Amino acid sequence: MYIGIDIGGTGIQMGIVNEMGSVLNKYEIKTNKELSFEEQLNKIVDAIYHMLDMSCYSISDIHAIGAGVPGLIDLTTGYILKCTNIGWFNVPFKSRLEEQMNCSVYIDNDANAAALAESIAGSSHGFATSVMMTLGTGIGSGIIIDGKIWRGSHCIGSELGHIILVADGIPCSCGNKGCLERYCSASAIIRMAREELLHRPESMIIESAGSFDKINAQIIIDCAKQNDPVATDIFQQYVHYLSMAVANVINLLDPDIIVLGGGVSNAGSYLLNAVQSSVTDFVVNKSSAIPKIAIASLGSEAGIIGAAMLGRKISV
Amino acid sequence: MYIGIDIGGTGIQMGIVNEMGSVLNKYEIKTNKELSFEEQLNKIVDAIYHMLDMSCYSISDIHAIGAGVPGLIDLTTGYILKCTNIGWFNVPFKSRLEEQMNCSVYIDNDANAAALAESIAGSSHGFATSVMMTLGTGIGSGIIIDGKIWRGSHCIGSELGHIILVADGIPCSCGNKGCLERYCSASAIIRMAREELLHRPESMIIESAGSFDKINAQIIIDCAKQNDPVATDIFQQYVHYLSMAVANVINLLDPDIIVLGGGVSNAGSYLLNAVQSSVTDFVVNKSSAIPKIAIASLGSEAGIIGAAMLGRKISV
Repeated sequence: MYIGIDIGGTGIQMGIVNEMGSVLNKYEIKTNKELSFEEQLNKIVDAIYHMLDMSCYSISDIHAIGAGVPGLIDLTTGYILKCTNIGWFNVPFKSRLEEQMNCSVYIDNDANAAALAESIAGSSHGFATSVMMTLGTGIGSGIIIDGKIWRGSHCIGSELGHIILVADGIPCSCGNKGCLERYCSASAIIRMAREELLHRPESMIIESAGSFDKINAQIIIDCAKQNDPVATDIFQQYVHYLSMAVANVINLLDPDIIVLGGGVSNAGSYLLNAVQSSVTDFVVNKSSAIPKIAIASLGSEAGIIGAAMLGRKISV
Repeated sequence: MYIGIDIGGTGIQMGIVNEMGSVLNKYEIKTNKELSFEEQLNKIVDAIYHMLDMSCYSISDIHAIGAGVPGLIDLTTGYILKCTNIGWFNVPFKSRLEEQMNCSVYIDNDANAAALAESIAGSSHGFATSVMMTLGTGIGSGIIIDGKIWRGSHCIGSELGHIILVADGIPCSCGNKGCLERYCSASAIIRMAREELLHRPESMIIESAGSFDKINAQIIIDCAKQNDPVATDIFQQYVHYLSMAVANVINLLDPDIIVLGGGVSNAGSYLLNAVQSSVTDFVVNKSSAIPKIAIASLGSEAGIIGAAMLGRKISV
């Protein structure tokens, strides 16, 4: 058995996960940025023991603990260098949790963990090489090559969200301009909607949302599904950019499969069909088969499963 | 010993290459698109025997023959599906040359071969993971992962030149718009110069070239080196895009090293220094070390060496 911990800005989810990537027990605590690292760590340790108590397992049944962190990690030292969402900077997460639990601990970026989870127990299961794009507030991405997380040579890769798609385009939170994330994330479709609605307020989007400020990706896509012309145009504009992003991955890496996860992927086959039909326009070698494109299947459990499997992959 | 054949639109270069990637003998014949495939193949066979005769080796010393082709290849069948430069479409190159030479033949895309050559005997020697960009009329690229050519799952990857860098940008010969090749190739810097010179004809570029039509990348860069203000602006504009392209590779793949080859790379350290100082602006994780960037060192022999080493890599 393995324990996976998915550290997020609002909650810390954890689960007991078997070798196949199935979650057997789950537990969640709230994230509290007010607490010091040691206080937060103690809460995580207490929660792990509480979860074990509720299950039929003890810590001696646990082969390894893994944690997925939305931030920058030093894999060699096990330090979390920067995790803004929880207020951790340069904290010795791996060594401190190992001391407290007397169990091996593995940490990685949460996007890498999600990609690993999908490749072990989700949509990319059975495919050696996959790329996962998490279409949320930003864009997370993970690359799996021959079943293993591809971390690059300096652990600075897999940042698909910050590949430049529109040179000198919209300013990004990272300091650059025209990053893919500014055109393909949930935030991007909301921006597109707000821009479009200024000129076309007749859309059902604002009424569905209640107010201009409450527009979200799901509402826009739901309105597009109901054939609202404005929402349909916004969705097509979004798919245009997302298809370019997917095609960029194909033209460079050509993996077996590309998995779309995150909030926007809740649109399911409506999104998938649109991307599949548009992506071939941007693939340069049109005569060959292209990678499969799929919607992620593990939902919010991907973080727990992937974190748990960090220990399995490294220890095997 | 190995034989490498570099098939190009104007000439077919070949060489006898040792296990370390050193070229011991070379020979070249002209490409003649008027000839049928079988006639052209016979000329290649004759040239191989002629080269062997001139050397101290015989065909029995040759472990394998490799060919780099500027076109689309089916690696499983050994057919060259499309090689416009030489007029070959769907020809059984591998099997026919094997029959004629009674020796194993390996074929691959010429950009993959060049990347392999640099990783065995050139600038990326000693680095497990590298990406080579050939900055010529177009942009060729090859990815080496753990010492081996990365071909992707459907042999349609490594097309860095056709990643979209400027969504809905300048139309590309591939049918898409805004491909990286339109902003980072030798053709791109010539286009930038022609556009700029319409407004700023005082530049020394036109005089150096003799006429507007004879402007090439080397002349533009030579004028920039001599501090011609217009040429300097054009060069900086080019470096701006090329640095984004290099950063895209870093942000996604994070290889050990990125090698710049092709005609534009003849600018040497003048280009390298400019790219190195600009690329960090576009790398998202600025706190870590980044991949090394280098100029290719094998020049026009890369094609022969890489082709020869196709057999070494596969047969080892």
